[in-house]
Amino acid sequence: MTKLFLKKKISRRIESGHPWIFANEVNKIEGEVNGGDIVEVLTHEGKFVGRGYINPKSQIIVRLLTRDKKEEINEDFFYKRLLQAWQYKKQMGYEENCRLIFGEADFIPALIIDKFNDYFVLQTLALGIDVWKPAIVKALEKIFQPKGIYERNDVPVRELEGLPQHKGFLSAPFDTKIVINENGLKFHVDVENGQKTGYFLDQQDNRRAIQHIVKGADVLGAFTYTGTFEIHAAHYGAKSVLGLDISANAVDQANENARLNGLENIVHFEAMNAFDVLKQWGKDGRQYDVVMLDPPAFTKSRENIQKAITGYKEINLRGMKLVKPGGFLVTSSCTNLVQPDLFLEIIGMAAKDARRTLRQVTYNAQSADHPIIWGLENTHYLKYLIVQVL
Amino acid sequence: MTKLFLKKKISRRIESGHPWIFANEVNKIEGEVNGGDIVEVLTHEGKFVGRGYINPKSQIIVRLLTRDKKEEINEDFFYKRLLQAWQYKKQMGYEENCRLIFGEADFIPALIIDKFNDYFVLQTLALGIDVWKPAIVKALEKIFQPKGIYERNDVPVRELEGLPQHKGFLSAPFDTKIVINENGLKFHVDVENGQKTGYFLDQQDNRRAIQHIVKGADVLGAFTYTGTFEIHAAHYGAKSVLGLDISANAVDQANENARLNGLENIVHFEAMNAFDVLKQWGKDGRQYDVVMLDPPAFTKSRENIQKAITGYKEINLRGMKLVKPGGFLVTSSCTNLVQPDLFLEIIGMAAKDARRTLRQVTYNAQSADHPIIWGLENTHYLKYLIVQVL
Repeated sequence: MTKLFLKKKISRRIESGHPWIFANEVNKIEGEVNGGDIVEVLTHEGKFVGRGYINPKSQIIVRLLTRDKKEEINEDFFYKRLLQAWQYKKQMGYEENCRLIFGEADFIPALIIDKFNDYFVLQTLALGIDVWKPAIVKALEKIFQPKGIYERNDVPVRELEGLPQHKGFLSAPFDTKIVINENGLKFHVDVENGQKTGYFLDQQDNRRAIQHIVKGADVLGAFTYTGTFEIHAAHYGAKSVLGLDISANAVDQANENARLNGLENIVHFEAMNAFDVLKQWGKDGRQYDVVMLDPPAFTKSRENIQKAITGYKEINLRGMKLVKPGGFLVTSSCTNLVQPDLFLEIIGMAAKDARRTLRQVTYNAQSADHPIIWGLENTHYLKYLIVQVL
Repeated sequence: MTKLFLKKKISRRIESGHPWIFANEVNKIEGEVNGGDIVEVLTHEGKFVGRGYINPKSQIIVRLLTRDKKEEINEDFFYKRLLQAWQYKKQMGYEENCRLIFGEADFIPALIIDKFNDYFVLQTLALGIDVWKPAIVKALEKIFQPKGIYERNDVPVRELEGLPQHKGFLSAPFDTKIVINENGLKFHVDVENGQKTGYFLDQQDNRRAIQHIVKGADVLGAFTYTGTFEIHAAHYGAKSVLGLDISANAVDQANENARLNGLENIVHFEAMNAFDVLKQWGKDGRQYDVVMLDPPAFTKSRENIQKAITGYKEINLRGMKLVKPGGFLVTSSCTNLVQPDLFLEIIGMAAKDARRTLRQVTYNAQSADHPIIWGLENTHYLKYLIVQVL
């Protein structure tokens, strides 16, 4: 096996458990370097650090899969890791739907697997994990006897790894429009054409958190995608719910989801640019009991962080202005580029501009099936806040 | 009414809604200054800021009760504030038990009222609120027709306000040992002699958060007081639970609470100094599936903050060492002197020393009946964390 020796001064990141090794942290490599191969990582003195997969085309040259010298990387390794992850998710209370593998946080870097009852959607986001796809599929079949497995590798990040974008079946073909149950409701999931893996499981716990504040309320939701938060609001007793999304296709699916739950008389969706509409409605003096915002990331790179800050501040300011005194704002941010402190600071700035006082109801991260590993900043990406706006 | 004019440059704190005015922020006072009286606060130009109660003996010379010029401070004011608070708490899902008034966060500075089914325990922690006790009692009677009201003003902080320490009935006498229901369990509350108001409602939501991690587990709890977390653990399916508290009296009550719920075969309490015992058991190699820590504040003053940091770090380090690989640590901090970031940093330091990786399950503040007002740092005091310890 090819041996990779780290520089004398090992970064604290690697020492304290982070599984990524950057090219500039390598002292020397003994043996052939074939992208995707398993290599052994050692200190400059030859002490075993771990095993992982190598990709000389990636900035992250190695991602460690194990730090246990006795643990070989083979089919059985993936079976055990998937089984452990499933046991953990079940322990956390997840049964029908969950993120089964959340990459590094479930100890398989660059692998994402979402479980939607008997269907599985996976993403292999690095070359070294892509080559193990057959082993991963085999493990899924052994543990779950799934009705279907689908690959959603149509993501640009794969190109950084020299991988093509691609989507398709990893099992016998099946109808890719499925229905899942969540918190007593039903939702369509389009595993072939939906965003990411088709559905955002990361808000599944947070969607329950609105139940107390929406009773009898007039609710406005923006960036609704397929309407999950809004349909929950109707289910929990809202008087009326209006959901906005810029995508006509998302709005169609959202209205379909409303009908699926018999809530189409309470919740309606319209294809509108929430950014513009919220501004206009603020000027018009419209007011809601509850405003819910789940905006996109605004930026994908650290260089454009200011763009994200401006975007989040502006949309939250516009949202707050639409909240009746004593009503509630439900707001999220889904990018790890905006870390929790910064997110809270942005909301504070918006409140100051809106001259409103905030009384906090709930502050959460993503659902517990997407665990946060301390020290792996990218695993803590979702911020979810409910505040009363006074 | 006496008029208090602020200095020309008003602090941003006051401007952005903070209800405290410090003596050094005052330009001049027109009229008599009688401790406990309602005064009007104005800018140096005479613009109305608000009304509040004055105490020249306190560092906080005025605490504002309203910023609404039309709102008079009278019996009706307190009735309305209590009613609003009760409506908010009910909206948040609280029925039987809640902190009805959490001081500034419920817009009545220095007033605490805990509701334990039909009984109420109150604390008036400043002179200017103490004088309104009859109005507050009257409002409680009107809204709730309580079976009893008790005053737990046996707290040193009152002396800063020139007030005596005192406890006793504010209604006809009643048996001060009552029983409350929480999350399907029963707990004794000793409103006369228990800590603070007799019971810690601030963890009532967090106690539910352990339900997934304790099933079939051997659980150790430290600083258990009357055993609420431990009895929840037994109720949620723990195999065995041992709770430690230094107070023999607390341990007796905890064992009584276990019996009250028919869980005395699963959960036991012992009077021990958790600090010493956890260290020794760590050396002995004892291991638990779940370790729960709910330590005291370690310090009451900002000057001794280092003492708190050292205390929290050390107890969490000792706790972590007792957690089996893959088991869970449940840990809290109840002082606002250690703000959330610092708390998380301390836990991170303990993990580093213990050479353990942490995977986060839940991170919360206090229950939502103790709301957090943004900008009022002292309203955000409780930190509650569940992590898997790898």
